[in-house]
Amino acid sequence: MCVTPERDASDPDGEIMRATSRALREHGYSDLTIQRIGDQFDKSTSLLYYHYENKDELVLETLEFLLDSFEAQFTANDITEPREHLETFVEQMRSSSEEQRHLETLLELRARAIHDERYRRHFNRSDRIFENYLSDVIAAGVESGEFRDVDPDAVAAALVMFFNGIVLRRSTNDDEEKTSRATAEITAYLEHRLYPDAA
Amino acid sequence: MCVTPERDASDPDGEIMRATSRALREHGYSDLTIQRIGDQFDKSTSLLYYHYENKDELVLETLEFLLDSFEAQFTANDITEPREHLETFVEQMRSSSEEQRHLETLLELRARAIHDERYRRHFNRSDRIFENYLSDVIAAGVESGEFRDVDPDAVAAALVMFFNGIVLRRSTNDDEEKTSRATAEITAYLEHRLYPDAA
Repeated sequence: MCVTPERDASDPDGEIMRATSRALREHGYSDLTIQRIGDQFDKSTSLLYYHYENKDELVLETLEFLLDSFEAQFTANDITEPREHLETFVEQMRSSSEEQRHLETLLELRARAIHDERYRRHFNRSDRIFENYLSDVIAAGVESGEFRDVDPDAVAAALVMFFNGIVLRRSTNDDEEKTSRATAEITAYLEHRLYPDAA
Repeated sequence: MCVTPERDASDPDGEIMRATSRALREHGYSDLTIQRIGDQFDKSTSLLYYHYENKDELVLETLEFLLDSFEAQFTANDITEPREHLETFVEQMRSSSEEQRHLETLLELRARAIHDERYRRHFNRSDRIFENYLSDVIAAGVESGEFRDVDPDAVAAALVMFFNGIVLRRSTNDDEEKTSRATAEITAYLEHRLYPDAA
């Protein structure tokens, strides 16, 4: 989901964020050091030590940077095909196993939010952005009559919660066959809950 | 869910597991030390150092101990009221906020399963036990005609996955009002997916 945006040499902050993102992908959170971020960075590593007190500052700014780019991409203006929007999103969520390593790192960072207020603020914002996007899509479908008359906020929040459940399961449970049947229930939920023609 | 079983002085292993469980509840995982487990233990702390190499050994044995007690309690023999079983279970899951601190600790431990094979084995077994119980309940409902003809294993695995999503959300997101509406969608899922009279 949070794909690293393209390089842009005229954007030094972006360069740092992209270097952090690559280092996180390569080493995960626990083995991440500022030196390892520097190894992914074209300029001098001392610049990183100068601007950032610790790796968490870099990681948190990078998470915000990636989320900004997602938000810009996914803030839906005119949703003319809500069911297509929703199914594309669900399909991405269900099948993003090639992104598994990255999602595990995001989950590790999210687990930090249990005790760390800074991570907690980020993931609150992150949930809200995904929820707002999905809620807009669902509201458009309810308005057009394509979806049943549900509470868009509740269904959107449930979807984001279920997706986090998928990531947690995939990262900590080895029964892939059953995981795949469990994730298919998200589609069943939408079919029975949203689509008037299905039930 | 994993309530600490009653004390039984004639069961020294159980005493150690109960002391670990109390210490985990009080201090969480990061601040847990063998000394702090010893503080909850009637006998000499040196006994713990003698038998256990590190706190993870104690924690893992305690998790297994708690899970055994859950398994003994929840291995359903004759399920005559499947809908009641299921609703009781879902209600417990949705409303276990008084257990929130304990669930956060379990989530922290589960996050260790991303990289630690020993925790991974435990949570694989834990998921399987909950899934088997729910699958038996759902199969009984399908058989009696109370539930629609679904795949009990898939719905059971989805429920366990959704519940883990609830715990993750509750532990890392502050919007309680929206969390409560999201968890209510689990009930909506069951109503639309399982109960023939609802859709």
